[in-house]
Amino acid sequence: MPGVLASAEEIAKPFRDGVRDSVKALGKKVVLRGILASEDRASGVYAQYTAKGCADVGIDFELVHVPRLEVEDAVARANLDRKAHGIIVYYPVFGGERDRSIQDEVSPEKDVEGLHSRWSFMLYEDVRYTVDAKKTIVPCTPLAIVKALESLGAYAAGAATGSQLKGKTATIFNRSEVVGRPLAAMLAHDGARVHSFDVNDVLLYEERKTLENKVDRPTALAESDIIITGVPSKDFELVKASEIKPGAICVNFSTLKNMDDGILERARVFLPRVGPITVAMLLRNTVRLFKNYHC
Amino acid sequence: MPGVLASAEEIAKPFRDGVRDSVKALGKKVVLRGILASEDRASGVYAQYTAKGCADVGIDFELVHVPRLEVEDAVARANLDRKAHGIIVYYPVFGGERDRSIQDEVSPEKDVEGLHSRWSFMLYEDVRYTVDAKKTIVPCTPLAIVKALESLGAYAAGAATGSQLKGKTATIFNRSEVVGRPLAAMLAHDGARVHSFDVNDVLLYEERKTLENKVDRPTALAESDIIITGVPSKDFELVKASEIKPGAICVNFSTLKNMDDGILERARVFLPRVGPITVAMLLRNTVRLFKNYHC
Repeated sequence: MPGVLASAEEIAKPFRDGVRDSVKALGKKVVLRGILASEDRASGVYAQYTAKGCADVGIDFELVHVPRLEVEDAVARANLDRKAHGIIVYYPVFGGERDRSIQDEVSPEKDVEGLHSRWSFMLYEDVRYTVDAKKTIVPCTPLAIVKALESLGAYAAGAATGSQLKGKTATIFNRSEVVGRPLAAMLAHDGARVHSFDVNDVLLYEERKTLENKVDRPTALAESDIIITGVPSKDFELVKASEIKPGAICVNFSTLKNMDDGILERARVFLPRVGPITVAMLLRNTVRLFKNYHC
Repeated sequence: MPGVLASAEEIAKPFRDGVRDSVKALGKKVVLRGILASEDRASGVYAQYTAKGCADVGIDFELVHVPRLEVEDAVARANLDRKAHGIIVYYPVFGGERDRSIQDEVSPEKDVEGLHSRWSFMLYEDVRYTVDAKKTIVPCTPLAIVKALESLGAYAAGAATGSQLKGKTATIFNRSEVVGRPLAAMLAHDGARVHSFDVNDVLLYEERKTLENKVDRPTALAESDIIITGVPSKDFELVKASEIKPGAICVNFSTLKNMDDGILERARVFLPRVGPITVAMLLRNTVRLFKNYHC
């Protein structure tokens, strides 16, 4: 019996509905400032999706398009502007370490992407509340994938925080600082053993530990209940049904195809993209920051 | 008349002497903690040079060698250890953005490398003193190159801060976050026009501004009084005497050869490496942090 092709729009819908209700209940103008500082096509598309998502839930989206060399000025202005409650910068601007510095220039109280080191340190330490008992901000795509996994039944309902994925093994192909690494840590914090592959090596995330890992791809795939791909390269060998554990939950967040079309011959469910859920989490983070810091 | 081959050891010597005098005058035990978390050969060599440099000036150097996955624990321990006054982590550990996060985990009050974003933001803003009138910490290699340029006569003696390089043009081949970009900013803050080349494009640094730059390599080299190379690739086309402005000051900080052997046919002076000066600046930063925060 073939598995189910899941819809990111369907998974995103209740979250969008929840954000829309929250905005309505607030009865205040919530403003998200978008900063586009490149001609990168994917960034432009993400900005369009942000605009549509904001319109849908009642958040005011203000997009400023600046030359890349003015991105830090735009961030500084948005930090100071009391009429901007959230800030999203569309990366890459310069790429690599240079962009990491920009992420730390966004005020954490407006950082809807959860990329500021204040938030990322808390994430890796599994600190889920700030000292004043406010929920932390988690980066949008890893959060979207966790919410998708919950929605697709990977999380044990009713289990205590930290044990909903107990006994489960996951494999993630991607260890970027913005998605793969935080996601590996989050799944481990929720109880899973996580094989984290990148182009150089494999690591094992378990509880709050990160360990060297000698597992190979066939073994990792054959034992994983959850398989997540996010490889931005056409050279990646597509994950095939024959490699995976029967009944696995498969998620792809790369803009490229990383899983073979026949994956549902063995997978219980396959979510081929997460973009709409990422946007929903972005809206959710915007409202959370508004409530926590700008009310 | 051919130019002069400059010696990094000679340039470093007065700085080492100064540090040795300072340590003696302090009459206290100054401890630098080195954290080596890789088997990278260049990192191991740098650690050896640090040990020799510390021994030479009377700083206690404690090297800890840990698996890469324990680097952050080692940093956290060193941050808390009141008996460690300075911390140096030998990069790369993981490389790229991942290492950028580690740089921000070192306490700025112990960050002898000047890589914490608190220091780098001040550098780019040309803030040279902290709010409590302490001199800021500047990353070692860019600082070493500035000191070398001063020593080699590029800086106008007696000119006011910010104008010692007025009227001078510089070209830098490298725009890494740890050397090329801060160096370009520092030379611009001291009055130079700086063409900054990396593998993708060219930027112009001028005063506190960064601008797009359409200059090509021949034009940049022909008009530059100062030429600095730091390209870690054998594919880089060596800078030749025929390309440069007669009388230029040439500095290479790459571990590879980036300048042709005949460069002195036209250059006034050529400094083929800066390593010993970098180590001297590391020692100098260690003593500065000790005096500023640990006395």
